[in-house]
Amino acid sequence: MSILVVGSVALDSVKTPFGESKEVLGGSAVYFSCAASIFAPVRILGVVGTDFPRRYVDLLKRRGIDTAGLQVRDGKTFRWCGHYGADLKEARTVSVSLNVMEGFSPRVPFRYRDSKYIFLANIDPATQMKTLEQVKAPVLVVCDTMNLWIETKRADLLNLLKRVDILLLNDEEARMLTGAKNLVNACNKILRLGPKAVVVKKGEHGAILATKNRGFFLTPAYPTSKVVDPTGAGDSFGGGFLGYLASTGNISESNIRRAVVYGVVVASFTVEDFSLRRLMKIGGPAVRDRFARVRQMVRF
Amino acid sequence: MSILVVGSVALDSVKTPFGESKEVLGGSAVYFSCAASIFAPVRILGVVGTDFPRRYVDLLKRRGIDTAGLQVRDGKTFRWCGHYGADLKEARTVSVSLNVMEGFSPRVPFRYRDSKYIFLANIDPATQMKTLEQVKAPVLVVCDTMNLWIETKRADLLNLLKRVDILLLNDEEARMLTGAKNLVNACNKILRLGPKAVVVKKGEHGAILATKNRGFFLTPAYPTSKVVDPTGAGDSFGGGFLGYLASTGNISESNIRRAVVYGVVVASFTVEDFSLRRLMKIGGPAVRDRFARVRQMVRF
Repeated sequence: MSILVVGSVALDSVKTPFGESKEVLGGSAVYFSCAASIFAPVRILGVVGTDFPRRYVDLLKRRGIDTAGLQVRDGKTFRWCGHYGADLKEARTVSVSLNVMEGFSPRVPFRYRDSKYIFLANIDPATQMKTLEQVKAPVLVVCDTMNLWIETKRADLLNLLKRVDILLLNDEEARMLTGAKNLVNACNKILRLGPKAVVVKKGEHGAILATKNRGFFLTPAYPTSKVVDPTGAGDSFGGGFLGYLASTGNISESNIRRAVVYGVVVASFTVEDFSLRRLMKIGGPAVRDRFARVRQMVRF
Repeated sequence: MSILVVGSVALDSVKTPFGESKEVLGGSAVYFSCAASIFAPVRILGVVGTDFPRRYVDLLKRRGIDTAGLQVRDGKTFRWCGHYGADLKEARTVSVSLNVMEGFSPRVPFRYRDSKYIFLANIDPATQMKTLEQVKAPVLVVCDTMNLWIETKRADLLNLLKRVDILLLNDEEARMLTGAKNLVNACNKILRLGPKAVVVKKGEHGAILATKNRGFFLTPAYPTSKVVDPTGAGDSFGGGFLGYLASTGNISESNIRRAVVYGVVVASFTVEDFSLRRLMKIGGPAVRDRFARVRQMVRF
């Protein structure tokens, strides 16, 4: 089953204690697509400038990603520059240039409109809503967001959440959205905002799934000893998560649990190198191997 | 099988966003004993001053804890005063008065010397070593420590670790002891210092068990929505952990995994009220219930 994703397409410049990358392929929709395409066909919706390197489009295509929804607008591609400190926890944004992202209005290509699995990757909630409105009959709508939108576009976000099945966000964002310091309470508050399920991504500490029916599911992260660049970890978590669900066509609670584990597994690869380097080198077997290892590591 | 524990016995004054407690029963050996006594008989070794309230000794005795090793010395009992901020993560020590703890030399009572399960709770590593030397033929030696000893008594601690089977410590301490920022690397370094296994306690994020044979075991914390006072959580983790091992008399790797889960479960009760209040109200059934819930919450 095809997945439709809308989000940012960026040229990232990142510095970590292990090195730096300059003007490399990035953005929430891109990390998501590359991760999800390990599992299922992906249709990407986004905008780039005329400066966007042709080779990056080719790279997405080689991955089987449908780029018909990648608008090219006059101007420059969205750029983000961030630095990570020694603990590799959170990026300090050095600069952001919206460029062609400013005023981006998503137009869902005709052949995308029957998409059943929708991923609203991190982007302005109004853009997420505009995308969703153009899809005919989605089976599952999964939404990611960030602190910026929680602070500056809260009304749009709350409005959108009423139409979202599963919300993904990180622990700080869950606290910020709900005002609850305790994550258990934060999850319960989010479930009253619309979503049937919420997944809290906790980086090296794994993830929490909370649902209205069965309560909590808890998974650790895959314990990698090689964290080089955390950029895109959350977006590729989303890709592993929804990619697995779409590939199985099964949105039962037990399958959603497995999808969360595929999320942490795919993210564990992303952080092992800069940009999409590591993610581009792996396929199903590597992912299934780490999935099996997580299962073995949590058994008692 | 009886457990011998050496550690601090204290009068704690604690302030958290949820209230405060003054001069209440605390200390690493006390939290450990109350937790472990849910599972197995405990023999406590420590020192108090002449001001130590008789009712606290009675409280330990009622719990079935053997207090023959509780020395009473002229002077005042060890006191600790700490405040927790809004995130309830780490206590800021406001004051510490060693009092009778200064110069404490452990004398293991004759009837304690055949103890098979030894817990060296958080206290000066030289005192931990002196205790261990008086035990005849221990089956399992488990040791806890803290940042203070890692910084100020590193040589004593490293010397002790050669005789320790399992080291318990928190994530910051694991990084401090090894110089490794990444916890996977930190665990592997600790396994080269002597212990056959290391348990890294990560508070609300659960715990990691690393062993020479089978690699990593990862468990989340029990997700409690009511965190009131984290004091003693790590020590009661130790009590649940070794209490379960001693009660089953089984130190196989799979049983050690279960013991880690009992550790996080017991700690989840401790944090739900000040001092030992919550811990004193629970027994085997409540603990087994949460253990079963964790098992259900990690299944996929």
